[in-house]
Amino acid sequence: MSGAETLQQIVLAQYCDGVPKPSDFRLETAPLPEPKDGQFRVAHVWCSVDPGTRSRLSGGDSYAAALPLGKPIDGFSVGVVDASSNPDWPVGTKVFCAGGWKTHSIQSGKGFIGKVMDVPGVPLSAWIGVLGVPGLTAWFGMKDVARFKEGDAVLVTSAAGPVGATAGQLAKGWGASKVVGVAGSDEKCRWLVSEAGFDAAINYKTASDLSGAIAAEFPKGVDVLFDNVGNAMVDTVLPLMALNGRICISGQVADYNLKPEETPGIVHTKPFITHRVNMQGLVVFDFARGFPEALGSMAKMIASGALKIQEDRFEGIAEIPEAFCGLFRGENSGRRVVKVGAE
Amino acid sequence: MSGAETLQQIVLAQYCDGVPKPSDFRLETAPLPEPKDGQFRVAHVWCSVDPGTRSRLSGGDSYAAALPLGKPIDGFSVGVVDASSNPDWPVGTKVFCAGGWKTHSIQSGKGFIGKVMDVPGVPLSAWIGVLGVPGLTAWFGMKDVARFKEGDAVLVTSAAGPVGATAGQLAKGWGASKVVGVAGSDEKCRWLVSEAGFDAAINYKTASDLSGAIAAEFPKGVDVLFDNVGNAMVDTVLPLMALNGRICISGQVADYNLKPEETPGIVHTKPFITHRVNMQGLVVFDFARGFPEALGSMAKMIASGALKIQEDRFEGIAEIPEAFCGLFRGENSGRRVVKVGAE
Repeated sequence: MSGAETLQQIVLAQYCDGVPKPSDFRLETAPLPEPKDGQFRVAHVWCSVDPGTRSRLSGGDSYAAALPLGKPIDGFSVGVVDASSNPDWPVGTKVFCAGGWKTHSIQSGKGFIGKVMDVPGVPLSAWIGVLGVPGLTAWFGMKDVARFKEGDAVLVTSAAGPVGATAGQLAKGWGASKVVGVAGSDEKCRWLVSEAGFDAAINYKTASDLSGAIAAEFPKGVDVLFDNVGNAMVDTVLPLMALNGRICISGQVADYNLKPEETPGIVHTKPFITHRVNMQGLVVFDFARGFPEALGSMAKMIASGALKIQEDRFEGIAEIPEAFCGLFRGENSGRRVVKVGAE
Repeated sequence: MSGAETLQQIVLAQYCDGVPKPSDFRLETAPLPEPKDGQFRVAHVWCSVDPGTRSRLSGGDSYAAALPLGKPIDGFSVGVVDASSNPDWPVGTKVFCAGGWKTHSIQSGKGFIGKVMDVPGVPLSAWIGVLGVPGLTAWFGMKDVARFKEGDAVLVTSAAGPVGATAGQLAKGWGASKVVGVAGSDEKCRWLVSEAGFDAAINYKTASDLSGAIAAEFPKGVDVLFDNVGNAMVDTVLPLMALNGRICISGQVADYNLKPEETPGIVHTKPFITHRVNMQGLVVFDFARGFPEALGSMAKMIASGALKIQEDRFEGIAEIPEAFCGLFRGENSGRRVVKVGAE
């Protein structure tokens, strides 16, 4: 079979134990599926790797439904319709969708799928990055969960990641009094300040006293903590929260690989009472009705240069496991996307 | 000096280390203060002891401002104006106020003070119980922080305490689909079900598997956790929360005596994302504008028998330290009030 006639996909070879490794996954080929009535086929151009996927790779339904062995891994893709039995989605339509770690997916137009808006200056890959789940998580997490308001002093963690970088830039654009990022290298910190317009950035790996470094940046306390790290980070920042502060739990990348008995606990809970701190997480699909407005706004911001994006590109579907596993080593600067087909 | 001419008060003799003990306190007498212009004097009839006071007795400003050694302890009182230079508060007015652990206090009409409403069938002591901070905490915690809505399945901890018992009864009266209490003795559990109208009660001291016992009562998950215990309880219930569940941190009686390094941590934080759980505490004074409405409603409920109150009465100001310290041994059933003067 030629490449054009087969589908390639990454499947779960064995359940992950702790930090995922490439050998937990396997590349498989299958016959290219044909769309039935009402369906259409998307030839993926880019696939994304997301830290949140980790929570479904341990076997057992702890929180999210576990993926079974041998099944392709879920993930987000952007591509072009290359076969269609659905007049609303003709051949040539550019779409983003929950296509999985595959070269092609069959879609019906339901669930998480949308048409790529034609905004000059916005790369196609952005539609699984800032214009995909990461950007939407940043938008609705900051606006609806953290209930951002003008003048808030905002701390963003994993700030150089696609969610954090977007969250911080949105807050800044919406009138934050200060936006500070926490990231894992001097290079990431420099990018945050010089490119993404953060007021300051703290390298947590070299800070001798992370709590003290954050406190120094927030003499009046943190109004919004937008956290992508997990319990240890939340526990560090809680005593520094301002009155009526809000914590948005956007992600927990440091905790995804840990068993409950290994997971750090949040101890400093008194500010929930004394400072009326509010904490909540989000699943971005709850906000689906607002996606078109958010995507349209962010696409324009990217095109105008008001929202900087940073991508970490890989080439070829076989690279997906390595790209994914590297997320947990903090290697990535920006959104990790893997090219799996021609644009 | 005769008793009528002196003020008696309980002062902090030494900072509490761990569980408070009566010798941390001292009874003192002082000359009876006279009200200046605009002031008036309240002869306290009842004083209350509140677990939350513990957080201010360790010295050092950790969260709440620490009380200095030798100073009288803050607390709530209900009594009668017995001297006045303020025409709005004439002699004979019955008031509740933040009077402290004293036989008398000087007030100006500002801060936490109000006139006792004349509702037949409501004992004066109720105005520092269900009609004081505990009841108001239950009311606003359930209504505004937990955002209770009809049909919610509600779990209340320290349910036989004055806050918990009120919170559960209010939820039941407002249309909860189920109200379950967690308490520390079979006698308390019996009172909750047979008197206070809870649907079920769990004795956490004898339950071999508290999490399993709660799960069995909530097959569809807990919509509202109204917690008065602290981190360990929150951590136990978090995995049992329903989608869009809300946790009101009303009190942390199990944690007040612990140093941060001894305090249990909240580990099971994934439901904040997967189940969009929201968690917040409260300081009831934020809701002061709503006090008259809440107090009026609850007074009528008490008078009609719709809201049961349970009091644990002590006699004489010298008993306050013992009454307070016993709170941390889980001895009390209902609100602990100490009679310090004639009605």
